[in-house]
Amino acid sequence: MITLNIVCVGNLKEKFWQEASKEYEKRLTKFCKVKITELAEQNKYENIEKIKEVEGEDILKHIEGKAFLLDIGGVQYSSEEYARVIETSSFSVSTITLVIGGSYGVSEKVKQAIKDKISFGKATYPHNLARIILLEQTYRAFMINGGGKYHK
Amino acid sequence: MITLNIVCVGNLKEKFWQEASKEYEKRLTKFCKVKITELAEQNKYENIEKIKEVEGEDILKHIEGKAFLLDIGGVQYSSEEYARVIETSSFSVSTITLVIGGSYGVSEKVKQAIKDKISFGKATYPHNLARIILLEQTYRAFMINGGGKYHK
Repeated sequence: MITLNIVCVGNLKEKFWQEASKEYEKRLTKFCKVKITELAEQNKYENIEKIKEVEGEDILKHIEGKAFLLDIGGVQYSSEEYARVIETSSFSVSTITLVIGGSYGVSEKVKQAIKDKISFGKATYPHNLARIILLEQTYRAFMINGGGKYHK
Repeated sequence: MITLNIVCVGNLKEKFWQEASKEYEKRLTKFCKVKITELAEQNKYENIEKIKEVEGEDILKHIEGKAFLLDIGGVQYSSEEYARVIETSSFSVSTITLVIGGSYGVSEKVKQAIKDKISFGKATYPHNLARIILLEQTYRAFMINGGGKYHK
């Protein structure tokens, strides 16, 4: 069974995001092992580049297997296309890492280290909503690949 | 104060979606009146076209002011562009209607009646998540237009 390693900066503060996350994590366990690594937001620095640099070092330590970075400028997939990306990766590795940056995005070093960038559209989302979108789309991907009926 | 009229098919079943919706509705009341009209899902019909036709008639009865339809094939905006769409509409009408279709999408009649279509990317979302995305992006739009600081 493949491991889904979700590496994200910052935690889910509101209870409803936590519950939404739990629900999709539960649904995903039918298809994969889910590991969520919440890294600390570096809010002790004033300099944004410094924040991204420190958070970036932390992100890079947690990459395993094949990694994808959520990036507004990344490749935009339909749900079916994203399902194929997940399926193809599942054939070659035992862990897929999905990275969601912090409030200020990620450092150039992270962008260069993670070549595969996924975009869920031109809109900017808060990191908590981005995490739920990612979980839902990944669950949808497994459902599409497994031929399950899921359209709501 | 402008009225935001959100017309959607189906209700939010899970508590966490209800709580997420409540939170963004509350935040939006700083900028607009929020009216959410949940229309019944027509699950007594087997024929999908019939479902969309009946739901479509219901949707069209609830359109007020300037209407936008959430449509995967619509115009994709960045959050800043969407903010301008909301701002421009606010100048000419007192109500903005945002329509989210049901599980099977909307009828051709609705697509023809509502010329302005908004897309939040190529991915397919469940209607409950689509509603939260729409609320968050509309709140973000008002924050951008008001010059508020909001990036999380």
